[in-house]
Amino acid sequence: MQKRLLLTPGPTMVPPEVAAAEAQPIIHHRAPEFTPVMKRVQEGLRYLFQTKNPVVILASSGTGAMECALTGVCSPGDKVITVEGGKFGERWGKIAKTFGLNPVNVPIEWGSAITPEKVKQLLDENPDAKAVCITHCETSTGVLTDVKGIAAIVSKSNALLLVDAVSSLGAEELRTDEWGVDMVITGSQKAIMLPPGLAFLSVSERAQKRAAESKCASFYFKLSSYLKNLEKDTTPYTPAVSLIMALDKALEMIRKETVEKIWERHARLSSAIQAGCRAIGLEIFSQSPSHVVTPIRVPEGIDGEKIPKILRDELGVTIAGGQDQLKGKVIRIATLGYATEFDATTGICALEIAMNKLGYKFQVGAGIQAALKELMK
Amino acid sequence: MQKRLLLTPGPTMVPPEVAAAEAQPIIHHRAPEFTPVMKRVQEGLRYLFQTKNPVVILASSGTGAMECALTGVCSPGDKVITVEGGKFGERWGKIAKTFGLNPVNVPIEWGSAITPEKVKQLLDENPDAKAVCITHCETSTGVLTDVKGIAAIVSKSNALLLVDAVSSLGAEELRTDEWGVDMVITGSQKAIMLPPGLAFLSVSERAQKRAAESKCASFYFKLSSYLKNLEKDTTPYTPAVSLIMALDKALEMIRKETVEKIWERHARLSSAIQAGCRAIGLEIFSQSPSHVVTPIRVPEGIDGEKIPKILRDELGVTIAGGQDQLKGKVIRIATLGYATEFDATTGICALEIAMNKLGYKFQVGAGIQAALKELMK
Repeated sequence: MQKRLLLTPGPTMVPPEVAAAEAQPIIHHRAPEFTPVMKRVQEGLRYLFQTKNPVVILASSGTGAMECALTGVCSPGDKVITVEGGKFGERWGKIAKTFGLNPVNVPIEWGSAITPEKVKQLLDENPDAKAVCITHCETSTGVLTDVKGIAAIVSKSNALLLVDAVSSLGAEELRTDEWGVDMVITGSQKAIMLPPGLAFLSVSERAQKRAAESKCASFYFKLSSYLKNLEKDTTPYTPAVSLIMALDKALEMIRKETVEKIWERHARLSSAIQAGCRAIGLEIFSQSPSHVVTPIRVPEGIDGEKIPKILRDELGVTIAGGQDQLKGKVIRIATLGYATEFDATTGICALEIAMNKLGYKFQVGAGIQAALKELMK
Repeated sequence: MQKRLLLTPGPTMVPPEVAAAEAQPIIHHRAPEFTPVMKRVQEGLRYLFQTKNPVVILASSGTGAMECALTGVCSPGDKVITVEGGKFGERWGKIAKTFGLNPVNVPIEWGSAITPEKVKQLLDENPDAKAVCITHCETSTGVLTDVKGIAAIVSKSNALLLVDAVSSLGAEELRTDEWGVDMVITGSQKAIMLPPGLAFLSVSERAQKRAAESKCASFYFKLSSYLKNLEKDTTPYTPAVSLIMALDKALEMIRKETVEKIWERHARLSSAIQAGCRAIGLEIFSQSPSHVVTPIRVPEGIDGEKIPKILRDELGVTIAGGQDQLKGKVIRIATLGYATEFDATTGICALEIAMNKLGYKFQVGAGIQAALKELMK
């Protein structure tokens, strides 16, 4: 017998009560009984996003919400600053190019984050930039970007700040209104504890004004249309009803725990993972690691693709490997969303078993001992 | 106590075994155990679509798949023929305009269907047209279009035939390859018996060639990218895993029943609804009614918005009202997807009760008697 554990940076595990809510009989999305659900999830999302502004709900993956955000507030020819420090940062640039924007792509080393100072310099050099697009947690490298510091700079400029928080919202502190972030994007299958299929974006007053003027080619993802429909607690096209019923339940759990406690929990669990790894001589890849996912450098002489394979196939624990240029060079362990201290300890125990099988030399038990000590702090 | 019955043309009722499949623990979409699921649903979809060609799966509503199809095989400036005989036919024209295509919009009276002869004439007048976009069942009016006849004409031209079968696929005969239809589009929340959140499109060889050349602005919905990923049984962005697990179960049920039997069942149930309505003096709105949904003209002196309200709030039976210019003028009853003869009889019984409450004069029981007789044929 195996119990399956999903320690990946999305999709993440779904609480049984959320899965049960998803399996409820379908309500017609235009029936009056769906309206209170839409009102309630809107309130819950605004709490989670820490915003008083509308949060748009899309039936799509997180990438769809990135497209909706960027095409929703820009017009062809607009200059936008995009930061390429990993697979997801690159995506901003690709979307911008696709829709005829003029992206200033800023490449930074994979594993490092852009600083507020660098953003200030970029805005000084490009005072006509209409948007700055960054990635809160670059899931491919685990790096966390200083959104608060960057927002303090960008909010004083004419550019809007678009933050891809697909993997981080709920796991890392992000105070949308207080920090002055114009658009925060996230997906359902991360800290929100839902299956994939929904994406969300918050829209500041500045961004709402821009949405009314945007001229990018956009139909399904037309931001202004979602904003107009949201005023009537509805969506322009059929919403993913069962996922929204599940969202209602997940947001109830999130409000009960409170975002502050959830941020704390993510910090505690990922610190335990980091401590456990370091104690058996493994190096954390990222220079500014997030609490979303811990990327671990594969040690010399070990086959990096075999670690996740053994964990998954022999032990029932799914973690992530490296993506693109990091394939085989890192493994990534996440305690994201529906995860407790014992998911973290199981992760470290399983990692010790797998590394031992692969012939990696370390003191068995040192990892889990360090993880436990970290959790007892 | 009320049992809720959903007799709308989407979302439709979800079988309990499909809902249970949806609530299963999440599998990571890049894990090897997801590959056989993707292979199996691809086979099942090809059977349902009656095609040997790839069927793309999107996390979006049906509208997203329409955008994916049209932008996937056209380039800005391309002439396309779109038929506006209802709310959904209009949508083709709007999408075409949004992405810089040159739509020749053909308005026809709401409640009527375009004929193969008219399509032939349009193609003769527009030999440079790159695509003909039609609606199999125009859900807003219940009208069925002769796709087979139109495909026989279009397949001899240089234009591709794009068929919005969002509400009809599985409910009405549609033989994609045999008839020569290039792209068939559908959604999950209709005859496929799933919650909303997935959309599908089949892509003929001609259309695949065109997809490689398309120059429309498209990122999330980039058709060529979905086709490329499908070869590896995957998707470019995170798929809606729980809905795909549910799809796997629903397609198993569909294959067991067979499409021919499912088409027959839809015909039998909607004929019973039609017979029941006629027997109490109600008129069917559509000139060529489909088996997807039966639109019924609201009789003189009766408040058309009150009929669905009484059915839903007092009797637990949700039907649809009229949309846009038909608001208050028609009601629409569907026995689509997971529906049996006793859902049809319940629908007619409930309709008799509601019409009686509203003071409509008719012989009580005449409707259900006619419906029963129709079902006994």
